[in-house]
Amino acid sequence: MINITGKVSEFVSQAAILTGLCHVFLHHTSASLVLCENADPLVQRDMEAFMFRLVPDGDPLFLHIDEGQDDMPSHVRSILTQNFLTVPITDGKLALGRWQGMYMWEHRLKSHHRKLTVTVYS
Amino acid sequence: MINITGKVSEFVSQAAILTGLCHVFLHHTSASLVLCENADPLVQRDMEAFMFRLVPDGDPLFLHIDEGQDDMPSHVRSILTQNFLTVPITDGKLALGRWQGMYMWEHRLKSHHRKLTVTVYS
Amino acid sequence: MINITGKVSEFVSQAAILTGLCHVFLHHTSASLVLCENADPLVQRDMEAFMFRLVPDGDPLFLHIDEGQDDMPSHVRSILTQNFLTVPITDGKLALGRWQGMYMWEHRLKSHHRKLTVTVYS
Repeated sequence: MINITGKVSEFVSQAAILTGLCHVFLHHTSASLVLCENADPLVQRDMEAFMFRLVPDGDPLFLHIDEGQDDMPSHVRSILTQNFLTVPITDGKLALGRWQGMYMWEHRLKSHHRKLTVTVYS
Repeated sequence: MINITGKVSEFVSQAAILTGLCHVFLHHTSASLVLCENADPLVQRDMEAFMFRLVPDGDPLFLHIDEGQDDMPSHVRSILTQNFLTVPITDGKLALGRWQGMYMWEHRLKSHHRKLTVTVYS
Repeated sequence: MINITGKVSEFVSQAAILTGLCHVFLHHTSASLVLCENADPLVQRDMEAFMFRLVPDGDPLFLHIDEGQDDMPSHVRSILTQNFLTVPITDGKLALGRWQGMYMWEHRLKSHHRKLTVTVYS
């Protein structure tokens, strides 16, 4: 999980919109966007552990394994979470809750380049 | 699960927008917003039962348990559902389906104050 | 799973918006909208197989079974995925990733008429 709250907040600040919405979209089907607890690193560790148990790499159920044991599981993990987020902008800032962070969650084992589109509107 | 359809509908009526969208955002990571069947109370009971079996309180997998056995499970349940909803406004009304209700789903055992932001736009 | 990318793209083209967002909403609680891998048909087969194992028809946990063994499971599968999608419009087109398709996922066994609302805005 990669915390993208800072980068998205910066983008919102530059847009100079007082009240509106911020939409973040991930152009991939083997990674996710989530709003996750942002204080204790154990939360992300537990989230990974849970997801890995629920949708394990190498599950014999899966036939789509061209790119390896983590191929289909990464698509399932993506479907069970989200590919886009819409968050209010209030007083010119991303109005996340006190404990909410915005994360890009990579579901493949190897690192990948991932493309996001951020849209703000009022 | 708390039915918030009425309150959000009232907000939409007051906004006097004929065609547009209504965005509802929950500022927390241990509760969710869902569009759930609104007729039979057993649906909510079954939803709770399923989620509790899928992500049980006290699961020894979890290390983030500072606030109790339901701490990390509530974050997982939140990630597996949603923190925001966007619903069309048609003819000045929230255009939910016949059987769709908007619910705030508390995942902690004890009651909490929860903050929502509702945004309407055309 | 029914691929609705073509129909939604056509709608976006007709709207003649260069930059904006496209919102698709499903007015039902026993079907879903998902952004799924669009190249290998095995992905959809695997997705169905996984979901059927995670939320099986006829699970004795469920009490809401008036409409049959697939009644409550379809509501759960809907909650674990999504009822709406918001995707950027860039250069007048739906800006999906190279491998992303937009799908309506029927969770009931028998076919149903399903209603969608598509909203575009800039």
